[in-house]
Amino acid sequence: LRDITVEEISDVLETPDEWVWVGVREPSEDLLDKLREEFGLHELAVEDAHNAHQRPKIEVYGDSLFIVAHTAQVVGGKIAFGETHIFMGKRYIVTVRHGASLSYATARRGCEQSQEMLALGPSYSLYAVLDFIVDNFFPIVREFREELQELEDEVFEETFKRETIRRLYVLKKELVTLRLAIAPLQDILNQLIRQYPGLIRDEVRPYFRDVYDHAARINESTDTMREMLTAALSVNLALVTVAQGEVVKRLAGWAALLAAPTLLASWYGMNFHHMPELDQPWAYPAMITVTLGICGVLYWLLRKAHWL
Amino acid sequence: LRDITVEEISDVLETPDEWVWVGVREPSEDLLDKLREEFGLHELAVEDAHNAHQRPKIEVYGDSLFIVAHTAQVVGGKIAFGETHIFMGKRYIVTVRHGASLSYATARRGCEQSQEMLALGPSYSLYAVLDFIVDNFFPIVREFREELQELEDEVFEETFKRETIRRLYVLKKELVTLRLAIAPLQDILNQLIRQYPGLIRDEVRPYFRDVYDHAARINESTDTMREMLTAALSVNLALVTVAQGEVVKRLAGWAALLAAPTLLASWYGMNFHHMPELDQPWAYPAMITVTLGICGVLYWLLRKAHWL
Amino acid sequence: LRDITVEEISDVLETPDEWVWVGVREPSEDLLDKLREEFGLHELAVEDAHNAHQRPKIEVYGDSLFIVAHTAQVVGGKIAFGETHIFMGKRYIVTVRHGASLSYATARRGCEQSQEMLALGPSYSLYAVLDFIVDNFFPIVREFREELQELEDEVFEETFKRETIRRLYVLKKELVTLRLAIAPLQDILNQLIRQYPGLIRDEVRPYFRDVYDHAARINESTDTMREMLTAALSVNLALVTVAQGEVVKRLAGWAALLAAPTLLASWYGMNFHHMPELDQPWAYPAMITVTLGICGVLYWLLRKAHWL
Amino acid sequence: LRDITVEEISDVLETPDEWVWVGVREPSEDLLDKLREEFGLHELAVEDAHNAHQRPKIEVYGDSLFIVAHTAQVVGGKIAFGETHIFMGKRYIVTVRHGASLSYATARRGCEQSQEMLALGPSYSLYAVLDFIVDNFFPIVREFREELQELEDEVFEETFKRETIRRLYVLKKELVTLRLAIAPLQDILNQLIRQYPGLIRDEVRPYFRDVYDHAARINESTDTMREMLTAALSVNLALVTVAQGEVVKRLAGWAALLAAPTLLASWYGMNFHHMPELDQPWAYPAMITVTLGICGVLYWLLRKAHWL
Amino acid sequence: LRDITVEEISDVLETPDEWVWVGVREPSEDLLDKLREEFGLHELAVEDAHNAHQRPKIEVYGDSLFIVAHTAQVVGGKIAFGETHIFMGKRYIVTVRHGASLSYATARRGCEQSQEMLALGPSYSLYAVLDFIVDNFFPIVREFREELQELEDEVFEETFKRETIRRLYVLKKELVTLRLAIAPLQDILNQLIRQYPGLIRDEVRPYFRDVYDHAARINESTDTMREMLTAALSVNLALVTVAQGEVVKRLAGWAALLAAPTLLASWYGMNFHHMPELDQPWAYPAMITVTLGICGVLYWLLRKAHWL
Repeated sequence: LRDITVEEISDVLETPDEWVWVGVREPSEDLLDKLREEFGLHELAVEDAHNAHQRPKIEVYGDSLFIVAHTAQVVGGKIAFGETHIFMGKRYIVTVRHGASLSYATARRGCEQSQEMLALGPSYSLYAVLDFIVDNFFPIVREFREELQELEDEVFEETFKRETIRRLYVLKKELVTLRLAIAPLQDILNQLIRQYPGLIRDEVRPYFRDVYDHAARINESTDTMREMLTAALSVNLALVTVAQGEVVKRLAGWAALLAAPTLLASWYGMNFHHMPELDQPWAYPAMITVTLGICGVLYWLLRKAHWL
Repeated sequence: LRDITVEEISDVLETPDEWVWVGVREPSEDLLDKLREEFGLHELAVEDAHNAHQRPKIEVYGDSLFIVAHTAQVVGGKIAFGETHIFMGKRYIVTVRHGASLSYATARRGCEQSQEMLALGPSYSLYAVLDFIVDNFFPIVREFREELQELEDEVFEETFKRETIRRLYVLKKELVTLRLAIAPLQDILNQLIRQYPGLIRDEVRPYFRDVYDHAARINESTDTMREMLTAALSVNLALVTVAQGEVVKRLAGWAALLAAPTLLASWYGMNFHHMPELDQPWAYPAMITVTLGICGVLYWLLRKAHWL
Repeated sequence: LRDITVEEISDVLETPDEWVWVGVREPSEDLLDKLREEFGLHELAVEDAHNAHQRPKIEVYGDSLFIVAHTAQVVGGKIAFGETHIFMGKRYIVTVRHGASLSYATARRGCEQSQEMLALGPSYSLYAVLDFIVDNFFPIVREFREELQELEDEVFEETFKRETIRRLYVLKKELVTLRLAIAPLQDILNQLIRQYPGLIRDEVRPYFRDVYDHAARINESTDTMREMLTAALSVNLALVTVAQGEVVKRLAGWAALLAAPTLLASWYGMNFHHMPELDQPWAYPAMITVTLGICGVLYWLLRKAHWL
Repeated sequence: LRDITVEEISDVLETPDEWVWVGVREPSEDLLDKLREEFGLHELAVEDAHNAHQRPKIEVYGDSLFIVAHTAQVVGGKIAFGETHIFMGKRYIVTVRHGASLSYATARRGCEQSQEMLALGPSYSLYAVLDFIVDNFFPIVREFREELQELEDEVFEETFKRETIRRLYVLKKELVTLRLAIAPLQDILNQLIRQYPGLIRDEVRPYFRDVYDHAARINESTDTMREMLTAALSVNLALVTVAQGEVVKRLAGWAALLAAPTLLASWYGMNFHHMPELDQPWAYPAMITVTLGICGVLYWLLRKAHWL
Repeated sequence: LRDITVEEISDVLETPDEWVWVGVREPSEDLLDKLREEFGLHELAVEDAHNAHQRPKIEVYGDSLFIVAHTAQVVGGKIAFGETHIFMGKRYIVTVRHGASLSYATARRGCEQSQEMLALGPSYSLYAVLDFIVDNFFPIVREFREELQELEDEVFEETFKRETIRRLYVLKKELVTLRLAIAPLQDILNQLIRQYPGLIRDEVRPYFRDVYDHAARINESTDTMREMLTAALSVNLALVTVAQGEVVKRLAGWAALLAAPTLLASWYGMNFHHMPELDQPWAYPAMITVTLGICGVLYWLLRKAHWL
C-alpha cells in the first residue's frame, strides 16, 4: 500500500502480489498515452477514454476490461451527468473521470482500510467504484420522487398553472436521460456477475449482485415514475377539461340570471302608445317584485343543477 | 417438534433428521449476528435482511437460498407494504419480517399438524410461507376490483367529480406498486419449480407450481385493472367533453331563445318620430303574440335539434 | 364401447386395450374423491378441479396431464364464462365442467362414431373436447365483431350518445376477459403439439395443430378488435371535439347576426334631444332597410366561412 | 413440359425427373378429393384447403409442405383479400386459390421460359408463386401511402371535416388487416430460407431470402404508416382544439367590440329627467365620436392580442 | 497501391497479397455486369445493387458478403436518404452508391495513408466505409435535436401556432424514417463483430464494435426524441386546452363586468309613468356612482378569482 509515480507502474506490474490503482480526472492526451504504454491498453479504448460522450458499456480487450459508466450529481439544484471510464486488468485498475462526478477517494479509502478486501485485488476495487457510482444515483431518484409528489399535488389543486405542465415535461425528459445512464449499467453488472472468470474473483461476484440490485431498484423507480408522469399528464388534461366545463356552466348560469331581467327591462322600454301596464301606479313596484321573483327562482334552479 | 434457544441451533443442525424453523420480526443487529454465526449465513445477505427496502429476489449463497418477498396488508383502509426475508438451507429456514405483514404462526401451525409434511423438510415450510404471503394479496386485489367497479360507475354517472379522477390516479399508483411486489415473485417461484435440486424436494415442486399460479392470477388481475383504468381515464375525458358540449349547446339554445324577443323589444324602444306601428291600438297585443309565437317556434326547433 | 359405474373404473384400467372417458359437471367432493382413488390422481390437481377459478394451464403429474381451459357461452344475450378441467392418462380421460359450458356429449358422440378415432385412445378425445371448447368461442367473437361494427357506425353518426362510449368501454372489458381465456389456451395447445410423447399419439398431433390455429385466429381477432376499439375511442373524442367546435361556431354566428341590429336599435333608443335622424319621415324605413342589409351581408359572410 | 389430366398425375409422379404443377381456383370437393388421392395429401390439409378463412401458416405433413398465404388485390377501388393454399412435395406443387387473387399463369410462364429454373423443381415454382403474391401487395401499400399523404394534407388544412377522421379510422383498420396477412408470411419465408432440407433446394434459398426482404419492407411500411396514423389522429385532435380556441377568441373579440357601444347606447336610453348631457346640441356628435373612438381602440387592442 | 482498369481486376485477384477496392455511383447495368463477371458475384445481389430501395441487410453468398446500408445527408436544409451496397470478398471490396451520400474518397484516403491498416485487407476498408456512413448520421441527429429544442420552446410559449404542431408531426415522420435506416445497421454491425470468421479479420472486430456503439448512440437519440415528441404533442394539447379555458374565463369575466351596467341602464330605460327615481335631481349622479361602484367591486372580485 503505497503511492507511486506513473513511470514506476510497469515495474510494479512485474512484481508479483502487487497491484496498482490509478485515478485521473479529465486527463491530457500525454498522460493517457503514458498510461497506455505502461499498462499496454488498446488504442481504441484509450481514444474512447479521451473523448467523453460514450454509451455505458463493457468491452474486453485481450485480458483487460474496459468499462464506461455514467455518473450523476446534483450540482446547484440541477442534475449534471458525467462519465467514468475504467480499465481493469489482472494487476491494475485505472479510473478516468469526466464531467460531474465525485472523487473516488472515499471508495478507495474504504478499500484500503481492510486488508482482506485489498487481497481480493482489482475486482474488489471495481466493485467499490461501481457501488459508489450507483449509490450516487439514489439522492437524484429521491429528488425526482419529491418533484413528482409536488407536481401531483399541483395537478389536483383547483387552479391550473402552465408551469406545472412544463415541469411535468422537464421531469419526463430528465427521467428519460437518467434511464439511458442506468439501464445499460444493469447489463454491465449482469456480465460482471456471470462472466470474465480470469478477471473477476468468485468471492467478489455476490458484491456485484448487490450493486446490480441497487441499479435495478433505481431503474424500477424511474420506470414507475415515467408511467405515473404519463398518467399525471392525461389526468391533468382531464381535470383542465372538467374545470373548463365548470367555467362554461357558471358563465351560462350568470348569463341566464341576467338575461331575464334585461329582457323584461327592454320590453317595458318599448315606445308603443297603448301599453296599459305603463300607466298603472302599481306597475313599477309589481315589475320590481316580478323581476326579483324570477331571479330568485332562476338562482335556485341553477344552484340545484350545479350551474352556479 | 420442539422449541429451542438461539444457542442450541448449531447443536440441532448437527443432529441428523432434525431441522430448525426460526421466525423473527424486525430483529436487532445483535440477533441477526447470532443467527449468522449459528447458521453460517453470508454477510451480504444478513446485511440485506437488516435493511429493509430490497427488491423481491432469490439468491444462492453456497448451499443456502436467500429470498426476499414483499408482503401487503390492508391496515385501517390503507394498503401497507412489508418485506419478508427468508434464509433456507438443507436443515433450517429463517424468516425475517419487516413492516406490515401477518405473523407466519398460522402457516407454521398448518405445517406442524401433519407429520408427513414436516418430513418434507424446510422446502415445504418455504412453500407454506410463500403460499401464505401470496394468499394475503387476494383481499387487496378484491378491494382494488371493488374500487375500480365503483369508479367505473362514477365515470358513467351524469355529474363529473374531480374526486373520481383523483381516485383513478391513486388506484393506478397503487396498482403499479402492487405489480412491483408481485411480478418478481413469479420469477422466484418459477425458479423454485425448476432449480435448486439439493434444496427443494421434488415432492414439494407441484406445491410451488400452485403458488406460482396464484401469483400469476394476481398479476393478470392487476394488469387487466391497469388496462381498464387507462381506458376509464380516456373514457372519462370523452364523457367530460361530451357533457361540456351539451352545456354549450344548452347555453346557446337559451341565448337564442332570449335574444329574439330582446331584439324585438329594443327595436320598438327606438325613438324615431315616424314609426307607424307604435300608434296603433292593436300594436302591443300583436307584439306580444308575435313574440310568443317566435319563442314557441324557436323552442320547438331547438328541442328537435336537442339543443335544449 | 360401453357405460360403466365409477367402481368399475379401476377394473377397466387393468384390462389392456380398453380406456375410460368420464364426464362430470360441478361434482361433489365425494365424487371427486372417488375419481381420485380410481384413477390415482394427484391431490393438488383434484383440489384445483373442485375449486373453479383456475387460470388456463397444463400441468404434468407423474404420467398424467391436468389441463384447465376456460369456456364461454352466450346465455341470454350476455357472455358467461365457465371452466373445464381435464385429467388425461394413458388409459383414461376425465372432464370436469364448471359454470357456463355446453355438454361434451356431441364431442363424445363424434368420437364414438368412428372406430378408427376411438382406437387413437384418450388423446383423440382430448382433441375432440378442446376443439369443441375453442369452436364455441367463434360465435362470441362474431357477436363482438357485430357489436364493434354497430359502435363504429354510432361513432361516425352526427349525434353523440353517452351510451356509445359506455358500450365501447364494456366491449373493451369483455375483450380483455376473453383474451385471458384464449391466450393461455394457445400455449397449452402448443405444448400438446410438441411435448408429452408417451401420452399424445403422433397421429393426433396435426389435429391439435388445427385447434391451435383456431385459437390463434380468435386471439388475432380479439387483438385486432382491441386495437380498433382504442382507435374508436380516440376517434370519438376527436369527433366530439369537432362537433363541439361546430356548435360554438354556430352559436357565435347567430350571436353576431343578432348583435348588429340590437346595437342599432339601442342606438336609436337614446334620448338625446338633438338627433336629427329621428325626425325624418324616411328614417324608419331607411333603418329597416339598413338593418336587413347588414343582416343579409353578415349572413352571407358567415355562411361562406361555414359559421352558420 | 406438357399439360396432363388429373388422372395421369400419379403416373407422372412415378416417372423420375418429371414433376407436376397443378393450379385450381375455388375447387369443388370432388376435385380436391381426387387431388388428395393422386398426391396422397393429408386429410386435415385438404379440409383446410376447401374451407377458406385460414391464417397464413406453414405446416409439414410427412414429406410434404402445406402453406397458406393471404393475397390482396385492388378490385374497383377497394381492397379485396383472398387466400392461396399450396401443397408442395418433392415432385409436385398444387396451388388452390380462393377469393381475390390474380392467376398464377404469369408466374408459371416465367418459370417455364427458363430450362434452368424448371430443373430446380417445385421449390423454384413455390418461390415464383410466393414472389408473385408478395409483389401484388406493393400496389396496395402504395395506394395506402397516397391515401395517408392526402389525409395528412387534409389534417393540416384550415377546415376540419368529419370525413377526414372517418378515413383515418378506415385506413387504420385496413392497415391492421393487411398486417395480419403479411406479418405471418415473414415467418413462413424465414422457415423456407432455413428449414426443410429435403424439399427446398439450396440454390433456391437466396430467392426466398429475396421474397422475405420484400415482405419485410411491406411490413415496415405498414408499421410506419400505423404509427404515423396514430400521430395524425392526435395531431388532428390538437389542431381541432386549437381551431376551436381561435373561434372562441374571435367570438369573444367581436362580443367585446359590440358590447361597449351597446352599453353606451343603453346608458343614454335611460329616462332620468335630469341628464344634462342629453340637452346639449353637441352631445349626439360627441357620442358618435366617443363610440367610434372606443371601438377603434378596442379593435386595435384585440387585433394586437390576436383575438380578432 | 495503384489504380487499375475494370478488366485488370480478375488478374489482380489471382495475384496473392493484393486486393481491390472499387467504388461506383449509380452504375449502368453494363458496368454491374462486368463487375459481376470479374468478381463472380451472385445474380440476385447484383440485381439488388442495380435497383435501389433495398432494406439495410447483410447476406452471405458463398464466400462473399453483400451489405446494404442507408445513408443520409442534409442537402439544402432537407434530409435526403441514399443507399450504399457493398460487396466484400476475401480479396476485394466493391461499393455502389445510390442517391444522397458523400463520396467514400475520404474514407479511402484514410485507409491508404497507413500501411498497417491496408495490410488488414478489405475488412478494414469495410470498417472505414461503415464508420463513414454512421458518422454522417451525427449531424442529422444534431439538427433534429436542435429542431426539437426549438419546438419545445414554441410549445411552452404563450401563443399557439398550427405551424408548431405541423413541425412536430414532420419531425416525428423524419425520426421514424431515420430509425428504419439506423436500427437494422446495428444488427449488421453486430453480425460483423461476431460472425464471418473467414472474411473479417479478428484485429478489425473491435473497430466494428466502435461503429456499433456509434449506431447504438444514434438509435438511442432517435428513440429518446420520439418519446419526447409524443410527450410534447400531448403537453401541447394540454396547454392549448388550458389556454382556451383562460380565454373562456376572460370572456366570461368581461361579459359579467359589462352585463351589470347594461342591465341597470335598460332598467331605467323603461317607460313606466310612475318611476319615482326618475324625477329626482340626484338620481342620475347616484346612478353613475352606483354603476361605477358595482363595476369596481365586480372587477376586484373577478381579478381575485383570476377570471380577468
